[in-house]
Amino acid sequence: MTRWAPGAAGRLREAAMDLFASRGFDQVTAAEIAAAAGVTERTFYRHYADKRDVLFLGQSAYVQSFVSGIEPLPEGAGAMDLVAGALKSASELFPDERRELSLVRHSVITANPALLERERHKSAELGDTLAELFRGRGIPEPTATIAAGSTVTIFNAAFAEWLHSDRPMSEITAGMLASLRAFASA
Amino acid sequence: MTRWAPGAAGRLREAAMDLFASRGFDQVTAAEIAAAAGVTERTFYRHYADKRDVLFLGQSAYVQSFVSGIEPLPEGAGAMDLVAGALKSASELFPDERRELSLVRHSVITANPALLERERHKSAELGDTLAELFRGRGIPEPTATIAAGSTVTIFNAAFAEWLHSDRPMSEITAGMLASLRAFASA
Repeated sequence: MTRWAPGAAGRLREAAMDLFASRGFDQVTAAEIAAAAGVTERTFYRHYADKRDVLFLGQSAYVQSFVSGIEPLPEGAGAMDLVAGALKSASELFPDERRELSLVRHSVITANPALLERERHKSAELGDTLAELFRGRGIPEPTATIAAGSTVTIFNAAFAEWLHSDRPMSEITAGMLASLRAFASA
Repeated sequence: MTRWAPGAAGRLREAAMDLFASRGFDQVTAAEIAAAAGVTERTFYRHYADKRDVLFLGQSAYVQSFVSGIEPLPEGAGAMDLVAGALKSASELFPDERRELSLVRHSVITANPALLERERHKSAELGDTLAELFRGRGIPEPTATIAAGSTVTIFNAAFAEWLHSDRPMSEITAGMLASLRAFASA
């Protein structure tokens, strides 16, 4: 059993993850998730639009976690400062306690091509959002797009490592950013 | 009308692009594409598995165009050399004559969420392939993953600019690579 916040939404999410992981995403219904969480199907639909929503509902919090790291930075901050701020802030969304649930979610998603496509699409959307934000901060093109793409690349690579590591996410993203700098200035 | 290579495969592709662009991907059948190209539906299926295949068949040539730029590089080439080689080679797949057809394809794909998801998924697959190739060339992690991600970011950003520009693709990718170096070493 994976642990999660109390309340119906959390219990539903926990039950869904356990069912998805043990039986496969396609083989599980919303009614079964509700039953496993000890709530009615109606309660399920009060919290989630459908069973896929259980896996992807955190998307706006996810994007916001990057944005929050940029907002406090002074006007005139350079692209590298914005990228570092976004990565540091987003790392905080993934404390060590979240690793176990993230691993289950990751295994469910990678086992299902349609979910994996969706996950990758979300990364692309994050890149678009960040590029727009960077342009709004006065970073010219193509630097804005490249800096945004680098942010997403680093975050995804760091996340993949974090899942199977015991190091904190913030340390891994910082190390990867240093690797980018070393690689690009070689 | 977009121009394309002669032969049934090329005529089918040209007819498909015209129909997709004018009526929308979902509204066009393989039979209609065949009729517009002046061939039988059986001939369509000898060349393409389905109508989506007309848009994505070039994927292996696309990945190979990056790989071809890495293969001739000497053992011990650094990550930046591999990235530059891959981008230079891939740029050659997009001569100016191909811009018109690429624009039509691009408009068809961006108008259809499922096709756009597929397109982005293909980018992610390219990144995975390049990272593996870089590791095989002795580039350690996380540099291999970051260099591969940077290659994809630069290529996609350059391609988006090339579509609406009159500069050659190779010049745009080279400029973007320089932007990455400037951004990352700031």
